[in-house]
Amino acid sequence: MDVTSSEFQTLYEAMTTFVNTCMSGHDPSHNPAHVHRVANLANTILQSEQSANPTQPLSAAVVKLAALLHDIGDRKYLPTLASTSSESGNANTNTADIDPKTMVELALLNAGAPPSLASKVQTVVSHVSYTTECKNPGLIRRLIEEDGYPELAIVQDADRLDAIGAIGIGRTFTFLGAQGKKFAKEGEWEMGNCIEHFVEKLERLEGMMKTETGRGMARVRTERLGVFRGWWEEEMGVATGAV
Amino acid sequence: MDVTSSEFQTLYEAMTTFVNTCMSGHDPSHNPAHVHRVANLANTILQSEQSANPTQPLSAAVVKLAALLHDIGDRKYLPTLASTSSESGNANTNTADIDPKTMVELALLNAGAPPSLASKVQTVVSHVSYTTECKNPGLIRRLIEEDGYPELAIVQDADRLDAIGAIGIGRTFTFLGAQGKKFAKEGEWEMGNCIEHFVEKLERLEGMMKTETGRGMARVRTERLGVFRGWWEEEMGVATGAV
Repeated sequence: MDVTSSEFQTLYEAMTTFVNTCMSGHDPSHNPAHVHRVANLANTILQSEQSANPTQPLSAAVVKLAALLHDIGDRKYLPTLASTSSESGNANTNTADIDPKTMVELALLNAGAPPSLASKVQTVVSHVSYTTECKNPGLIRRLIEEDGYPELAIVQDADRLDAIGAIGIGRTFTFLGAQGKKFAKEGEWEMGNCIEHFVEKLERLEGMMKTETGRGMARVRTERLGVFRGWWEEEMGVATGAV
Repeated sequence: MDVTSSEFQTLYEAMTTFVNTCMSGHDPSHNPAHVHRVANLANTILQSEQSANPTQPLSAAVVKLAALLHDIGDRKYLPTLASTSSESGNANTNTADIDPKTMVELALLNAGAPPSLASKVQTVVSHVSYTTECKNPGLIRRLIEEDGYPELAIVQDADRLDAIGAIGIGRTFTFLGAQGKKFAKEGEWEMGNCIEHFVEKLERLEGMMKTETGRGMARVRTERLGVFRGWWEEEMGVATGAV
C-alpha cells in the first residue's frame, strides 16, 4: 500500500486512535508518547537507509504501521488494556479473549487493511522484543535477511533507541516507580534495580542494532548511559560512605 | 548530647527503626535509602565544615538526628504513613491524630531524648523544605544565622544534594512513575513534567546552598542536570521531528 494514498492515511489515523485509546492509561514509560517517538525514529531510519541503498526492498507502510503498533499486546500492560477496552463498552475484549499474537492483525483487518499487509505487520510486531530475540536470535536474523521482513530491523532499532540515552534513563526510573514492587528483585524496591537493568540489558542494545543509521545513533546514546552510570556510582559512593 | 555516648547510640538506633518502619512502603524516591544517603551526606558536610572552622558551634547530635528524621511528617506521604502506623496496631496514629509539626519531637521524647534536643531537632526538620524556604527565605536565614540553628544549613544542603545529579534525576522520574497523575500538570502524565521540574526547582538549588562544602558538591551535580537536559532535548528533537 502506498503510504501517500488517502487509503493509507485513513488506516494510519484509525490505528493512531486505537493506540492512543489502548495506551492512554499507561505510565509514561510505555504510553502513546513513547509509541509516537518510536514511529518518528523509524521514519528517520527508513529514510536514511533508503537514501543509502535505494534498491533495498523496504515497505514504508509496514515500517510505519509496525512502529505505531509495536507495543499493542505487550504482556507487561495487558490487564490495563483489557480493562480499558472493557470500560469502553467492547464486550469482546476481556482478558480471556485477548490473544496478544493476533491483536494487531485483527485491529488492522477491522480497519480495512489488506490481509497481506495486516499479516506482515503482525509478524514484525510479534518479533520486535528484546526478550524474543534473546530466546532465538537466529529466528530474528532469518526473518530480516531471508524471509522478507527487512522492516523488522528498522522497527527494532527505533524501539531500542527510545530505551537508551537520556530518554531511556527517564523511562527506566519511571517504570520502576510505576510498577512498584513488581519491578523489584528479591523484594527490594530500590533505584539500584534500574542501574542493574542498564548493565544487564540497555548497554547491550547497541551491539544488537541492525541498521547503520540505528547503530550510529545508539553509539551516542549508549555513551550517555555510561556517563550517567559513572555519575551514579560516584554519588552513591559519597552518600553511602563507600568512598 | 555527646554523639559518641551509648545513650545517643541507643536513641539513634531507635529513631532509625522508627524511620525504616514509617518509610519502608514509600516509593524509592523517598524511602529509607534516601534518608540514609542524606544522613551520610550531612555527616560528610558536618566534618568538612568543622575542619574548616573548628570553633563553629555545631551540634553533631542535632545534625545526625535531624538528617535521619527530615522526611518524617512529609505531607506528600502522610496518608501512607498513617496507614502503616495503623496497621502496626497503634490506635493513636490515624490520620486525624497526626500533626506533622510535632511528630519528630514526640517520637524523640518517646524514645527518651532530652526535651531541649527533641525540640531543636523538630525545629530543624520543620524548616528543611524548599517550599518552606521559598515562602519565607528570611526566616530560614535568621534561624541559621541568629537563632541558634546552624545545623539547619547542613541538613538542608544534604537533602538538596540528594535531589540533584544522577541520583536526583533518578528520584524525579521514579516519583513521576509512582505518583501517577497526581504529579501531572493539567492531566498530562508525561516525562516532560520531570524536565520542567529540573528547570523550575532542581537547577536552582545550587544557588540556595548554605555551606561551602555543600555548594562545591552541588556545582558538580548541577552541571550533570544540565548535561542530562541537553541530551534529553537533543533526543526529543529527533524523536518528535522538531529538528
